[in-house]
Amino acid sequence: MQSWSPSASISTLITLATLENEKPSGSHETVPLELIAEAQLKGYHSVCLPLTTENWHTRWTEMCLMPSDSIQRRTRESRRESKLAIRDLSVEGKAEAWRENPCFERDEVTITRLAKNVTAIISEWLELDAEEDGIRYDAEIALQQELAYASYLNIHTAILPAPRNRDHVSSYARTVRACLSSAPYMNLAIRLPVYDTSLLEPTLIVSPSSSSSFQSSSAPSTPRLVVSGSADSLNRPSPSSASLEAHIDAAWETWDLIRSICDYNIRLALALDLTPPLPNSPGVLSKWAAESVRYIFLPSSTFIANAKGYPVLPKPTQTFIRDSMAHRPNIIISGASSGLHKRGGEDAYSQYVKHLERTSPVVEAAEKVGTVENFAQGYQDYLQAPLQPLMDNLQSITYQTFEQDPVKYQSYEEAIHKALAEWPKQDKIVICVAGAGRGPLVARSLSAIKRSKRGNVRLYAIEKNPNAFVTLQSRQRMEWKDRVRLLFGDMRLIQIPEKVDILVSELLGSFGDNELSPECLDGAMRFLKPQGISIPSSYTAHLAPLSSSKLYNEARAIKEEKSLETPYVVMFQAVNLLSGEGPGPSGSCGPQVQECWEFEHPRKNPVLNAQGLPPTNSHNTRSAKLRFHIPHAGVLHGLAGYFEAILYGNIGLSIHPQRKDQVSKDMLSWFPLFFPFKEPLYLPSNSELQISIWRLTNERQVWYEWHAESFLGSESSSPAGAKSPTMSGHPLPSSNLMASPTIGVPSPLIDAVDLAPRSSISFQDTPERSTARLVKIGHTSLHNPGGRSSWIGL
Amino acid sequence: MQSWSPSASISTLITLATLENEKPSGSHETVPLELIAEAQLKGYHSVCLPLTTENWHTRWTEMCLMPSDSIQRRTRESRRESKLAIRDLSVEGKAEAWRENPCFERDEVTITRLAKNVTAIISEWLELDAEEDGIRYDAEIALQQELAYASYLNIHTAILPAPRNRDHVSSYARTVRACLSSAPYMNLAIRLPVYDTSLLEPTLIVSPSSSSSFQSSSAPSTPRLVVSGSADSLNRPSPSSASLEAHIDAAWETWDLIRSICDYNIRLALALDLTPPLPNSPGVLSKWAAESVRYIFLPSSTFIANAKGYPVLPKPTQTFIRDSMAHRPNIIISGASSGLHKRGGEDAYSQYVKHLERTSPVVEAAEKVGTVENFAQGYQDYLQAPLQPLMDNLQSITYQTFEQDPVKYQSYEEAIHKALAEWPKQDKIVICVAGAGRGPLVARSLSAIKRSKRGNVRLYAIEKNPNAFVTLQSRQRMEWKDRVRLLFGDMRLIQIPEKVDILVSELLGSFGDNELSPECLDGAMRFLKPQGISIPSSYTAHLAPLSSSKLYNEARAIKEEKSLETPYVVMFQAVNLLSGEGPGPSGSCGPQVQECWEFEHPRKNPVLNAQGLPPTNSHNTRSAKLRFHIPHAGVLHGLAGYFEAILYGNIGLSIHPQRKDQVSKDMLSWFPLFFPFKEPLYLPSNSELQISIWRLTNERQVWYEWHAESFLGSESSSPAGAKSPTMSGHPLPSSNLMASPTIGVPSPLIDAVDLAPRSSISFQDTPERSTARLVKIGHTSLHNPGGRSSWIGL
Repeated sequence: MQSWSPSASISTLITLATLENEKPSGSHETVPLELIAEAQLKGYHSVCLPLTTENWHTRWTEMCLMPSDSIQRRTRESRRESKLAIRDLSVEGKAEAWRENPCFERDEVTITRLAKNVTAIISEWLELDAEEDGIRYDAEIALQQELAYASYLNIHTAILPAPRNRDHVSSYARTVRACLSSAPYMNLAIRLPVYDTSLLEPTLIVSPSSSSSFQSSSAPSTPRLVVSGSADSLNRPSPSSASLEAHIDAAWETWDLIRSICDYNIRLALALDLTPPLPNSPGVLSKWAAESVRYIFLPSSTFIANAKGYPVLPKPTQTFIRDSMAHRPNIIISGASSGLHKRGGEDAYSQYVKHLERTSPVVEAAEKVGTVENFAQGYQDYLQAPLQPLMDNLQSITYQTFEQDPVKYQSYEEAIHKALAEWPKQDKIVICVAGAGRGPLVARSLSAIKRSKRGNVRLYAIEKNPNAFVTLQSRQRMEWKDRVRLLFGDMRLIQIPEKVDILVSELLGSFGDNELSPECLDGAMRFLKPQGISIPSSYTAHLAPLSSSKLYNEARAIKEEKSLETPYVVMFQAVNLLSGEGPGPSGSCGPQVQECWEFEHPRKNPVLNAQGLPPTNSHNTRSAKLRFHIPHAGVLHGLAGYFEAILYGNIGLSIHPQRKDQVSKDMLSWFPLFFPFKEPLYLPSNSELQISIWRLTNERQVWYEWHAESFLGSESSSPAGAKSPTMSGHPLPSSNLMASPTIGVPSPLIDAVDLAPRSSISFQDTPERSTARLVKIGHTSLHNPGGRSSWIGL
Repeated sequence: MQSWSPSASISTLITLATLENEKPSGSHETVPLELIAEAQLKGYHSVCLPLTTENWHTRWTEMCLMPSDSIQRRTRESRRESKLAIRDLSVEGKAEAWRENPCFERDEVTITRLAKNVTAIISEWLELDAEEDGIRYDAEIALQQELAYASYLNIHTAILPAPRNRDHVSSYARTVRACLSSAPYMNLAIRLPVYDTSLLEPTLIVSPSSSSSFQSSSAPSTPRLVVSGSADSLNRPSPSSASLEAHIDAAWETWDLIRSICDYNIRLALALDLTPPLPNSPGVLSKWAAESVRYIFLPSSTFIANAKGYPVLPKPTQTFIRDSMAHRPNIIISGASSGLHKRGGEDAYSQYVKHLERTSPVVEAAEKVGTVENFAQGYQDYLQAPLQPLMDNLQSITYQTFEQDPVKYQSYEEAIHKALAEWPKQDKIVICVAGAGRGPLVARSLSAIKRSKRGNVRLYAIEKNPNAFVTLQSRQRMEWKDRVRLLFGDMRLIQIPEKVDILVSELLGSFGDNELSPECLDGAMRFLKPQGISIPSSYTAHLAPLSSSKLYNEARAIKEEKSLETPYVVMFQAVNLLSGEGPGPSGSCGPQVQECWEFEHPRKNPVLNAQGLPPTNSHNTRSAKLRFHIPHAGVLHGLAGYFEAILYGNIGLSIHPQRKDQVSKDMLSWFPLFFPFKEPLYLPSNSELQISIWRLTNERQVWYEWHAESFLGSESSSPAGAKSPTMSGHPLPSSNLMASPTIGVPSPLIDAVDLAPRSSISFQDTPERSTARLVKIGHTSLHNPGGRSSWIGL
């Protein structure tokens, strides 16, 4: 097992003021290089450097922000009444010359020589989202000019000024898209405060301190990012959490629009600015886990002093940074040398961040042997095609990987042991392992038989993989001897010497039935006695809606046809579940993760043909219609699929995120399933999402199809006086409510209160609550069988 | 000019009852054929025939709707407590045998022989959207079975039973999609009542009369479509129009979901059932114009008796049918022979429908010489790439087509005449036609000069197309002699002997500037005197959001890369403008069609280089951000682009849908522009749509990019107590409101009140109105330059 290599990197921000102050000691050409070298000596991985000086700002302002010019551009009246516009044509001539051939002069840039590990900070004052067309257009030329210059200096990443104007975010985004296209080797990051403090109540707006601003001065004529920059502000009462949540949602909405317009370009990332104090409710920040947060801004002013005077972060920021470590961000510390805190000096900030990394739950889990996180190093967010053990014969290495699971086979042994223990003492018992593979369940069965101290047990093992059958024969000869009888063949066709009492199988996939366990066991039921039992006895499939720009991009990147119409096995990391715990505006939403359907073995009263097989597979079709509450705005990229199985009695297996630790903690064998959507679906705050999913079959194949519709509660959207048609709103009738599998049913696996029943009870208690009228606001296209439906393959 | 060939077709519906009643007179095999032959003799174009008999209904019900079976399937409890489910295994065995090999018996179908012009009516009782999985699954098998049988009989169209259950429309749609895929030569139509009467107030629900039901009897166990089937019901007071609107929106929402899940398959159409009485407000029905309504059901019970006792339709239905004639629907009349009306007999119904076709405004316009509708026969909804006269030299036939316009050149002559009339009498005047083509503007200039009775006018004509220049020389020699001087060359480069007073050009495209008129005239301004005038003197571009499944499919069908990122010239027909007249929930929406930007010639205070040309093209960039109110739910498929130009004074050209008839009625030269969207965007009722559009340029090209965001007013979507952030809601500040070009400005072209100023005034009068909090609910991807940006090409 490899251990976690801490790979969050730490950068420092050099300000124009620092460059200015250092000048006496060095030459114009060497100052930035010296500062970069110094930062590297101090242990920073990279340096963020503003690319342009105040000279450029001045020239650009004179050329492009001339007042007469802006009057000229701003109003249509002026286009008619030209006398009003007293234009300085020589300045406009200079601007035209610049537009024709954009070019810096030496004193307008901070650096002229090639430098390594430098991230360019684009001129903060560039108004890419200015009200006026002309300013935006000139800002775009200036941005392209800076990017071209950065590219010339071999700088590969640039951080763009924050969007400031919601009304023109689409123009800002269009410009970024154009830059991604014209600078094909440049990575761009959008600086974005985690919320816009200027929108909060006036008392919360703190005048900017130069330590948290990139450039030491900026002309009063251009809007500036107003940030709460002094440590004092952190001691003030924080704004109401609901208001903060709305503002954090608004910041995310801005980011969503930008990256959507840029079509999720993988060279576009987010530089999340943690200057504003974070709220205590971490839930509202969870959406950032699904985004490409490659940089985190952490000015020294964000730190508070601990009892000894050393800089530490406020609790919510600590938590957020720790959680973010999973994504290995680049953390940009600014103002570390400004002496804001009494103790620790400049190093204290980066050392503290390293401490947060070491104590991050993800890092700790990854370093602990036996956890899924440790087991799955390198598999985070990696899309794998689900196994098709029925169609393909597995490789030995695959069996080996799964045999490492310390929990799954222990649970199987317990289940077999319990079944034996409950079986009437005097009866002879026949056990059959159907699909024995390399034999782990055979070994566990033998162990359970031994523990049960019963002499009258006979054990069969069936396997259809000829290669694995060699291993089985070898183990029989070396270990098991005549305690097991091996049978070679497909469990759906093979004839076995006698009927069995206990049929043990491990055919489950991440979604329960997705590796065709129901179809295989249908075939094996031929040789199960009427009162015989199956281990597992039943299993359920579960879904939750998820957001993940990473997974969306990964699925799109697969160039096979219909890559977005097939589910994948994925160890989730950069993923955010969008659903809350219901009941939602309609009162009919289920819990965060909802059950789709169940399979039971043996089936009750099956219709069988002369061979003991079901004439058609129609009894294995299923469908589910689930309704989720979406508390915070997000983008739906897919569905997370989980399973839960009852092996026997109260012994089970579960990868259900809220129950797995209670049912089968540290089980390694299954990552969740990811059902992608072709087109992202935007979901506003407090909306509802209806997921339809079908398990379908014909005589040869089994596959899933899935679809989503979104709804928003609305008072105002119905024409005045209209009676709300149930076609549109359709709160579920209560009879449906009771029958719906989404409502928590008593689970034999968990006696403790779990989340699902709690929320379902809370709204069953108040059936008269007024349900909002729901308005449909969107849907996805149907996802139907791609190249990878599972073949029954008989 | 070809004349309108009436091609709406009329069909008759044969019911099971009719088949049954006719039996004594003919054999089992021949009755349907005789009825079909009889219908054709009566002049019907085709016959709609139910495919299955009551026998099949009975067998299917016994097999698939057994009560014990449905208990078994319905509840999960029953899966556990098998004692409750007393199943008849022999029936289930029969069902399994059927599922394995679906097959009709002779008496279960109505027809066995090949027949022409027959549309199959699929068993109306099939519950494709049943609550229960199992019933839906079996209904799907039965549907596939009927379609396969219809296909065997060479029937190419089948009408499916109406969806009944909003909760399972997605399942219904998924089944339809599966059928479209498994029956690749079959056209499917979804029967859909224009609204669902069962959702109205109980007083309005009228028990079904057999004359409007396809099958004469149906088992009480299956739900039936409840329709208001007796003529009496039409005399009752109609339900509140707002309620009706909501129900009509709900019916459309059902259709939208089905065709979306079927990915706008062109073999899927709508059979709109006009059995329910239509409301008096036709606006709410306009959305159907954008849909594929290929069939219209018109039972005789929908007709009322006129004073003489002949069947006629109520006014709203008349209007709807007349308007629908544009789309050449197949109108299915049922119950014509049931004698519901005293006079006229069976023929009266179809004759009345033919009368409606003849008196339809579209048909009348198409038959009248001189109208656009007549001129554009065959071009409806046909996508053409916009002309690029700057890059390409046009063909003579193209010039010929446009020279046919009786209005455009008359307006030009008037404008030139007016300019001459206002010019000081004593001055010599130089006129130059820039881009003379084959000479229509030269001829009009000469005519205006002659009418002005001025002797001191000199006329130049410039043309860069060498082929057209031959025609010009020929006309000069034959007609114009020395009254005009021809100059060969590009107006942006050519040197001309003297400066001119009046520059006349016809470089306008459907969107005004899209054929690069601004760039060309920039070049021609070199030889315009300082006080000279340009005809046209200015032009504006206008947009409105549109819905059209036809245009969406046409644009997708173009297999060139980025076919959905380029605008097209289209004569709109199956198109519905989604916008209303504002002000919308935020109070900041403009009128139905909004102005984007303006170009003026000559430009005020241009910066020019030594050659008299602008150094860059940056002054020709434009952008607009428009906000539209969407009163009724619809799907955004694209934008409609229009232009309006002022030639001189109050003489103009306009294709603005609300103003063209006042400015330049019957002008033929321009169809609107269609900007497509890649992904349809669902817009709920009473939502707002924000369109961003940019006219962009670099040193070589000019192109447009466009983007849309949708918003919904919501009371409940903000977390309790949250202060609404302006980032999200952003009602426009009033200063913006005044400066926005979307607000109607006084137009020199129209003095009469037009719609735009009216609505803008109405909300400027009430600035304190409470604006709803808007929640963003969706957006489109950015559309950026495709293969077809216009090349400046110098």
